[in-house]
Amino acid sequence: MDSVSVVQKQRCCLIQILILNRICNKKMPLGERGGDKTESRYCGIETDFNDDMPHVLDFNLSSAGFDFVIAPLMDPVYRPSLVQKESLGSAVLPFAGSDLVLSPSQWSSHVVGKISSWIDLDSEDETLRIDSETALKQEISWASHLSLQACLLPTPKGTTCANYARCVNQILQGLSNMQLWLRIPVEKNDDDSTDANSDTLVDSWEMWNSFRLLCEHHSQLCVALDILSSLPSENSLSRWFGESVRASIINTHSFLTNARGYPCLSKRHQKLVTRFFNHSIQIIISGNSVHPKTSVVANVSHNHSVSDSQRHPLRPYLDYVGYLYQKMDPLPEQERFELGYRDFLQAPLQPLMDNLEAQTYETFEKDAMKYIQYQRAVCKALLDRVPDEEASVKTTVLMVVGAGRGPLVRASLQAAEETGRKLKVYAVEKNPNAIVTLHALIKLEGWEDIVTIVSSDMRSWNAPEKADILVSELLGSFGDNELSPECLDGAERFLKKDGISIPSSYTSFLQPVTSAKLYNDVKAHKDLAHFETAYVVKIHNAARLAPSQPVFTFTHPRLDRESNERYKKMHFVIPNDTGSAIVHGFAGYFDATLYKDVHLGIEPSTATPNMFSWFAIFFPLRSPIYVGPGSTLEVNFWRCCGPKKVWYEWCVTSPTPSPIHNTNGRSYWVGL
Amino acid sequence: MDSVSVVQKQRCCLIQILILNRICNKKMPLGERGGDKTESRYCGIETDFNDDMPHVLDFNLSSAGFDFVIAPLMDPVYRPSLVQKESLGSAVLPFAGSDLVLSPSQWSSHVVGKISSWIDLDSEDETLRIDSETALKQEISWASHLSLQACLLPTPKGTTCANYARCVNQILQGLSNMQLWLRIPVEKNDDDSTDANSDTLVDSWEMWNSFRLLCEHHSQLCVALDILSSLPSENSLSRWFGESVRASIINTHSFLTNARGYPCLSKRHQKLVTRFFNHSIQIIISGNSVHPKTSVVANVSHNHSVSDSQRHPLRPYLDYVGYLYQKMDPLPEQERFELGYRDFLQAPLQPLMDNLEAQTYETFEKDAMKYIQYQRAVCKALLDRVPDEEASVKTTVLMVVGAGRGPLVRASLQAAEETGRKLKVYAVEKNPNAIVTLHALIKLEGWEDIVTIVSSDMRSWNAPEKADILVSELLGSFGDNELSPECLDGAERFLKKDGISIPSSYTSFLQPVTSAKLYNDVKAHKDLAHFETAYVVKIHNAARLAPSQPVFTFTHPRLDRESNERYKKMHFVIPNDTGSAIVHGFAGYFDATLYKDVHLGIEPSTATPNMFSWFAIFFPLRSPIYVGPGSTLEVNFWRCCGPKKVWYEWCVTSPTPSPIHNTNGRSYWVGL
Repeated sequence: MDSVSVVQKQRCCLIQILILNRICNKKMPLGERGGDKTESRYCGIETDFNDDMPHVLDFNLSSAGFDFVIAPLMDPVYRPSLVQKESLGSAVLPFAGSDLVLSPSQWSSHVVGKISSWIDLDSEDETLRIDSETALKQEISWASHLSLQACLLPTPKGTTCANYARCVNQILQGLSNMQLWLRIPVEKNDDDSTDANSDTLVDSWEMWNSFRLLCEHHSQLCVALDILSSLPSENSLSRWFGESVRASIINTHSFLTNARGYPCLSKRHQKLVTRFFNHSIQIIISGNSVHPKTSVVANVSHNHSVSDSQRHPLRPYLDYVGYLYQKMDPLPEQERFELGYRDFLQAPLQPLMDNLEAQTYETFEKDAMKYIQYQRAVCKALLDRVPDEEASVKTTVLMVVGAGRGPLVRASLQAAEETGRKLKVYAVEKNPNAIVTLHALIKLEGWEDIVTIVSSDMRSWNAPEKADILVSELLGSFGDNELSPECLDGAERFLKKDGISIPSSYTSFLQPVTSAKLYNDVKAHKDLAHFETAYVVKIHNAARLAPSQPVFTFTHPRLDRESNERYKKMHFVIPNDTGSAIVHGFAGYFDATLYKDVHLGIEPSTATPNMFSWFAIFFPLRSPIYVGPGSTLEVNFWRCCGPKKVWYEWCVTSPTPSPIHNTNGRSYWVGL
Repeated sequence: MDSVSVVQKQRCCLIQILILNRICNKKMPLGERGGDKTESRYCGIETDFNDDMPHVLDFNLSSAGFDFVIAPLMDPVYRPSLVQKESLGSAVLPFAGSDLVLSPSQWSSHVVGKISSWIDLDSEDETLRIDSETALKQEISWASHLSLQACLLPTPKGTTCANYARCVNQILQGLSNMQLWLRIPVEKNDDDSTDANSDTLVDSWEMWNSFRLLCEHHSQLCVALDILSSLPSENSLSRWFGESVRASIINTHSFLTNARGYPCLSKRHQKLVTRFFNHSIQIIISGNSVHPKTSVVANVSHNHSVSDSQRHPLRPYLDYVGYLYQKMDPLPEQERFELGYRDFLQAPLQPLMDNLEAQTYETFEKDAMKYIQYQRAVCKALLDRVPDEEASVKTTVLMVVGAGRGPLVRASLQAAEETGRKLKVYAVEKNPNAIVTLHALIKLEGWEDIVTIVSSDMRSWNAPEKADILVSELLGSFGDNELSPECLDGAERFLKKDGISIPSSYTSFLQPVTSAKLYNDVKAHKDLAHFETAYVVKIHNAARLAPSQPVFTFTHPRLDRESNERYKKMHFVIPNDTGSAIVHGFAGYFDATLYKDVHLGIEPSTATPNMFSWFAIFFPLRSPIYVGPGSTLEVNFWRCCGPKKVWYEWCVTSPTPSPIHNTNGRSYWVGL
């Protein structure tokens, strides 16, 4: 029971963050097309240099319906070295207009600055290199002066980018809120002829990775993807959804032509664009009109006044993108409810040390699916335990340990009724506040003869008799992370030798993920402790790099006195067609067998549907690990137990050993 | 003029450190064999388990002459899981003796604890794994109780060591002063058949590297090398001299037999042992006597009382090691003087912002070799400038910029005398304290008619005439790092168009190094700034992984108004036979052309002999970079100039991009 409790507690704080986002987080309120509230509602257009900015906005936004433009700020013929020789410092820089031609809010809401595409800071030509540095700094300075929300940086020209990254990194240190979007083509890497020793980068992700490592994962350095007419494999594309991609630029040449002469996209492109919508990535249309229907329209617009919005040559492309947007299924209600929690890190519960609040119980009790599964498990256990012929004479002793405000008591009694078995229930609960509600419930329902309330910690209670069935729900997002094993160690003292524990076992699962968002949020704390803590989080903008694997399993009742310490080494193979990727940490889940074939869990491939009590857990890595195509990631996880706490330690041993995280539970632990 | 000035300033502080070292740094005063003061004077012996520790010490130290023993602390038949089943907690652990059998100082000075060699924390057998963890913790705990200075950890058994490292790392967090020496065999990696995809590690360095990365470079985790009868290549061996190697264990089987039946070592082994001596690495003899002469002696010792020290079976091996030690050349005086500065990080000078102290001048002025080179350069310049026939009529105007207390004035005048040329000298100096001495010198030497003293910063002085020759010594360990270019920019205003600058050019050099010592000293500061600072240091315990390469060159006088900013990308190829290695940072040097073929410098391959004014410079890396055999390390260095400061930025771009260090000179800069 990991996610919702903390969600409730943190709601106030979250609202503050959402307000803050609106102010600071460079959202562009460039229009409204209904539906979701993410940035992907807005569509931009890349334009050529034009020093009449009011006209640029009028033509592309007001008339054509785009939400913003990506426009060059500086005349492309400008070169600093030429100016210096000619005018010795008195010249005005050839920017597009003065800052007064648009209002401040027009600049910041409707214009993304496009840095001169000729710049090449890693050229062999020193004059070009120095000119590039000068121009880049001048243009960014101008964009900052205009309070633009982002600038688009041209794609690095060669195979290396050290000097470009050095200069951008220097700029980033002094930048207030503006983002820098590095333009990266999504290139198809030729799977068959990959030559690891080749000098040319076949995988454009590598260029992005070098650039951002050199800039030390700066949170304002983002990606704008150039979408070309051919696309790499699904796995290769998926990597990008864990990176800080802000925009995807689709060239008109990447569109197909439909039977009626209008632009459309291939099925794979359509799917990709839908995915961009779902990940708050804005679409930008770029290039000239190259489709018959649009060309005709464009020609017309030269001979007539541009009053009809249909006459913008790229309007049909925008219409098509809008069509794809509106074609999407509406968000399910649960998704809509959880929208605000996407990629929002929450501290895990300390359920043994703290008592839950009423609101938390309230939320969890609404998770109908969970109790249906428990009821099914108790039914099956009762039928196995008591044959039909003994149903009327044999009373089963069932103990709910961690009864809370009673939902598992209710599910158990409903199971007894459903199966016609006689039940005696002990409801053991350590939280005295929940005990109050429990008493009221028993009275209200008239269960006084069947249910005995015990106000005690299950680890110290002296039970008056032994139980046939022990029912508990002490599971965290990572299974054992709320110390279910330690609690049940205490409770199993009063379970009969042949008694049944529901759940009968649970297993944690893990998979490596790329998630620049989560990594940067952890890093923002600027300390070691946050990098050695596990977080409850609804992971959304992430790339899952390999299928999840089981980690630790606990079975109840335990047969021998085995320890609750565990050690697991896992090998995750990164698919060859993924290309290279970066691992920011691990997503964790659990799956519990309640009884026989009745299970409950959040492991993605087998998750119980419509259940909202648990989000995933996230274990970060202090330094993200680079993994090459087809490489194996070797990961070690330990569950360690001390006299007063339980904690995890983790590390990567291959391809590159990481430090061991959370040594001796120094940063993160769960108190006993 | 980098090294000595700061050395002088820091002498007091250094003495404190030396005293501290004696107390804390686990030096073992186990005997005295004359010569140097490093730990390599002491020789140890590895022994079997024996619970009569007084006898062990008596037999091996008092009788045989060894300085310390490496002795098992626990009976090797002990297994925790067996004990628990038998005696349920009442048993006494089978340690070698009680703590009272030796005095505390005997324990700590004469015994290194040897951890049970059967332990295997990465075994597939869970019982063995858990037994190993229990035993390891018990033995280290006992060794700590005895205040031993070090324990020897057995070599990891398999190809992975994650669980072993996790357990050792947990222990390291709570250890006071004790070192843990991980035993690593120096294995010969088969150069011809290296199979990168092989599961077995052919290079034992890889095991060490994984282990220490997992333990995050903990400064108390060290290496004890096992020296076998065959040795890998020189390059492969050299790597280890940058690692924290504390001891090398030589098995008797690695000795050859000389003509008279006594043990001796191969030429390559002898050279290696001498290198160990020079790097404070202690020799430990291990194994049984396997040489004819020693066996005979050993047999005798069984029949007689062990009073004669010659009767210890391994005494001939100790004698041979002692012979190698005494055979070494004595340390040259300069080396002896600089012994205390080995691997001692010093902050670089800020010569423009600070004035040097008298003691600093004093030290530098003693560097005769430097002034001999300057005198040779001035001689050649005078001969080129004034033909013999004009010698008596033409007066050359020579300006010493940065005259200090006058050594370059003296060298110039001596050159004039030597060549019979007439000289007019201006001595320009910004430090008013040095001007006082300079006046006294001129008067004392009777140079009033020839030398004009100018108390001014050369960057602002208005010279009354132009100079034929400009003499300066503004060089730092990295050439331009004390801002010689910026100073000479100012001074060249008053150099004739065809005038000569001495030096006429200087170039910085760089090479990648392994140096665990320097890395850990930087890391001990626990902040970013120290990882982004360059240090002046006499680099000793380091492995130089590739030949140095030129970085930045400055030529004087400058022809055009080129900038003093520089960018250099370098590619260092790690030799194939080195194997893998780790790069902790870069050693920097300079070489200056004073005039034509007269040069001055500290670049190792061309260093001017017997010159002590400069130590090397060290640029650290925040995260050490792993380089595979034959791989190319791509390194970028920038020299950046602002209105008030000059700084370097640096990064690695291949094989793994590092963050760019010292962005905008945030951590380290030289003030203008």
